[in-house]
Amino acid sequence: MRVEEFTIEGRNAVLEALRAGRPIDRLYIQDGCKDGPVQSILREARKGEALISFVKKERLDQMSETGKHQGVIAQAAAYEYAQVEDMLALARERGEDPFLFLLDGIEDPHNLGAIIRTANLAGAHGVIIPKRRAVGLTAVVARTSAGALNYTPVARVTNLSAVIEELKKEGLWFACAAMDGEVMYRCNLTGPLGLVIGGEGDGVSRLVREKCDMTAAIPMKGDIDSLNASVAAGVLAFEAVRQRRGGQ
Amino acid sequence: MRVEEFTIEGRNAVLEALRAGRPIDRLYIQDGCKDGPVQSILREARKGEALISFVKKERLDQMSETGKHQGVIAQAAAYEYAQVEDMLALARERGEDPFLFLLDGIEDPHNLGAIIRTANLAGAHGVIIPKRRAVGLTAVVARTSAGALNYTPVARVTNLSAVIEELKKEGLWFACAAMDGEVMYRCNLTGPLGLVIGGEGDGVSRLVREKCDMTAAIPMKGDIDSLNASVAAGVLAFEAVRQRRGGQ
Repeated sequence: MRVEEFTIEGRNAVLEALRAGRPIDRLYIQDGCKDGPVQSILREARKGEALISFVKKERLDQMSETGKHQGVIAQAAAYEYAQVEDMLALARERGEDPFLFLLDGIEDPHNLGAIIRTANLAGAHGVIIPKRRAVGLTAVVARTSAGALNYTPVARVTNLSAVIEELKKEGLWFACAAMDGEVMYRCNLTGPLGLVIGGEGDGVSRLVREKCDMTAAIPMKGDIDSLNASVAAGVLAFEAVRQRRGGQ
Repeated sequence: MRVEEFTIEGRNAVLEALRAGRPIDRLYIQDGCKDGPVQSILREARKGEALISFVKKERLDQMSETGKHQGVIAQAAAYEYAQVEDMLALARERGEDPFLFLLDGIEDPHNLGAIIRTANLAGAHGVIIPKRRAVGLTAVVARTSAGALNYTPVARVTNLSAVIEELKKEGLWFACAAMDGEVMYRCNLTGPLGLVIGGEGDGVSRLVREKCDMTAAIPMKGDIDSLNASVAAGVLAFEAVRQRRGGQ
């Protein structure tokens, strides 16, 4: 994975980037700046993941590339997404049946990071996420993936259903995680497989679910509704691993 | 689980509570208070989980029980721990073999919450955590447990090894999660069982590991070192569930 680091300088530029939901990793504010625009920037920044540091003007002057920082510099990183084709190529290269994760609406960056980590260790060839209603690759995702983001390709697509249709032509079968499905031990999770896992709130959306060949359930006892999304993904992924190893 | 809510009022009391590592859920500061002691309180509070609100003096006056809030009121919750005996009683009551989780040094409250959630849904009778070098039951743990904390007893003990010794007398077997263990499918995880899971950093400590009857490994491919702690706990727990259901 290539990571491009860049800075955003000046009050308007930083405020606009924050309001547009651009992931900001670090925010540097000049010591003593407490006027309205800076307060707005701080308020927006605290909604997100940014680490905020108050620093001396000299430090900002050093960091500045434009010389016009106005007391505010933000640092962001743009993680480069892979293509779905890269994942199929990786499977071919390894001489393995494709094994992909499709995440329908994971919103928590810690969950996304943990799932990319799981995908790597389950031997999956990639993770596909949607562009809308889902977290993208942010600094927190990169950190919680514990390095997996450097190895496991992540693609971001406009329409998960359309991607499932395309991948079916490549011979993949799709198993959707859902509580009312067949208990996962009775689902065939061997061969070319896409595991479809829903978000923290609503699970897999109806349209995506209807495209899947089977619905797999984790057998659950207990008093509450559902596992944490990254735990559920892990349990289902390693049931696939167990079956793909021939059960031993 | 019983939860006792209480407030801490006044600058010194709140600052001392924060410095002592007492989990503070919410911190209310009087609008406009920016002096040194309040800055110290804010600095300490931002290291932890506290939600910080700036409110008018009248609101603090209403909330105050002592009438001497000095512009600062903290709210905390004390979650009541269960006893290990309660867990064995719960298993007896349900007519099941005891199935316990023992966590050796989980430090992240999100992981602890997710594991309590997993324990509940895997049908475990309780979660045992150590008093030292581990997070206890905080508001974040309660929230991320998604209600499981109301059903699944959590005990906090001084010495995990001693508890394992005691529970062996009750007929429990102990399986320790470790990467260099026997692949988990070949470990017998049926019957009265304690699953021992290590923390985010170092895994299970040597002393605790030596007390265990077997060492179970999740089979891993991939490029990175380890799964997220709560995902690893989930994968191992549901392998136990699979075996305890007779594999189907």
